[in-house]
Amino acid sequence: MESLTMKPEEIESESFRIIDREVGDHDWPDAEWQVVRRVIHTSADFDYARNMLFSEKAVPQAVAAIRDGAGIYTDTNMALAGIGKPRLLPFGCQILCHIGDSDVRALAQREGVTRSVTAMRKAIRNPNNRIFVIGNAPTALFELLRLTQLKQASPALIIGMPVGFVGAEESKRDLAASQLGIPYITNVGRKGGSNVAAAIVNALAILAKQD
Amino acid sequence: MESLTMKPEEIESESFRIIDREVGDHDWPDAEWQVVRRVIHTSADFDYARNMLFSEKAVPQAVAAIRDGAGIYTDTNMALAGIGKPRLLPFGCQILCHIGDSDVRALAQREGVTRSVTAMRKAIRNPNNRIFVIGNAPTALFELLRLTQLKQASPALIIGMPVGFVGAEESKRDLAASQLGIPYITNVGRKGGSNVAAAIVNALAILAKQD
Repeated sequence: MESLTMKPEEIESESFRIIDREVGDHDWPDAEWQVVRRVIHTSADFDYARNMLFSEKAVPQAVAAIRDGAGIYTDTNMALAGIGKPRLLPFGCQILCHIGDSDVRALAQREGVTRSVTAMRKAIRNPNNRIFVIGNAPTALFELLRLTQLKQASPALIIGMPVGFVGAEESKRDLAASQLGIPYITNVGRKGGSNVAAAIVNALAILAKQD
Repeated sequence: MESLTMKPEEIESESFRIIDREVGDHDWPDAEWQVVRRVIHTSADFDYARNMLFSEKAVPQAVAAIRDGAGIYTDTNMALAGIGKPRLLPFGCQILCHIGDSDVRALAQREGVTRSVTAMRKAIRNPNNRIFVIGNAPTALFELLRLTQLKQASPALIIGMPVGFVGAEESKRDLAASQLGIPYITNVGRKGGSNVAAAIVNALAILAKQD
C-alpha cells in the first residue's frame, strides 16, 4: 500500500518511468511520444505504442489550436468528463458534447440515424467547434468526414479514436486516407475509446501549457 | 459506411456476434459471460476474456442489489458519465462520485492523500452507497478494503477495475484475496479503467431489467 501515501504527481512520474522502461527503444518523435505515452498510461495497453497514427505536424498544430482557444466537440459524455477543464479553460477552449441533447435525440429517431450523427451535425453548425474528439462512435467520424468533404465543416484537428467491432477500424482508416489536409490523431485497429480520446486531449493541453 | 444506416441495436448485436465468434469456446457461465462480453465490446480488448475474475455468485448478488435500489458510488466522473442512468433510476439506484467535491479536494490537500481516498471516506459515510465501482484509482480500492476490514463499510458489491502501473494490479489482487465475504468483480493485471468499470455496471443493469 505504498502508493496510498504517494502524491498523484509521484504516481504519474513513476508510471511514466515504467512505461519508458518497458517500451524501450522506439521511433516516436518527442512530441508524438508525449501523446502516445499518456494513452498507454490511461489504458495500460502497450498496443498503442505501435498502432497510433499522426498526420505530419499534428501535435504542434493541435497545440497551436488549443492556444488559440479552439472549441472542442466530443461525441461522448465520458470523454467530456475525462477531459481536464482547468488546463483548457484558461486558453478559452469550450468543451461540448451534444449526445444527450433532447433535440438531437428526437432528430435521430425521426431520421433513423444514430444520435452520434445528429449530434455531429449540430456540432459543426457552431463555428467555435474546431477540435473534434471522437472516442466512441464510428458513425460520428464518418459523418464528420462527409461534412468536411462537403466543406460544411473545417476542423483544425480530428482526434479519431472510435472503438469496437462495426465500423470503428474502417472509420479510422477513412480518416487517415481522407486527403482533406486536416490534422489528425488516430490509431489502427478496433481499439480506442473515450478514455484514450480524452487522454490525447489532456496530453495536448499539457503541451500547450508548456514552453 | 453501411454502419451509418444501421440502428444502434443492430450495431450492438452484430458486435456481440463478432465477439462470440472470435472468442469461440470458453468456460464462462452465462451470467458472467454477459458481463465479460460487454467489457470486450467496450474495449475491443480480448484480454478480458481471460483476465476477469468474479467471486462466487457475484452476478446474481449484484443483480439483487440493483433491484433492491442499492446506491452506486464510483471514483471517477468518467465512470459516472458512462453508467446508463435510465436503466438504473427506476430501481431507485442513485449514482454518485465525490472526486470533484470541494471538501474532498481540501481534505486531500490537508492530509496529503489522494482525492480518491478522501472521496471514498466521504462515500462510505452514506449508508445508501452499497455498490462501489472503482475504475481508476488503486488508492480508492485500497482504502475501501481497509475501511471494510475495519467494519466502517459493508459493500454489497465491489467492482474493482483500477488501471495502471502503480498499485492497480496489487489493489485488485488484494480485493480477490481479501476474504471479507464481499461479492466482487475484478480482473487480473494492469488493464482496467472507467470505461470498462461502467460497462460492467451497464451489463448488470441490463440483467437486472431482464426476467
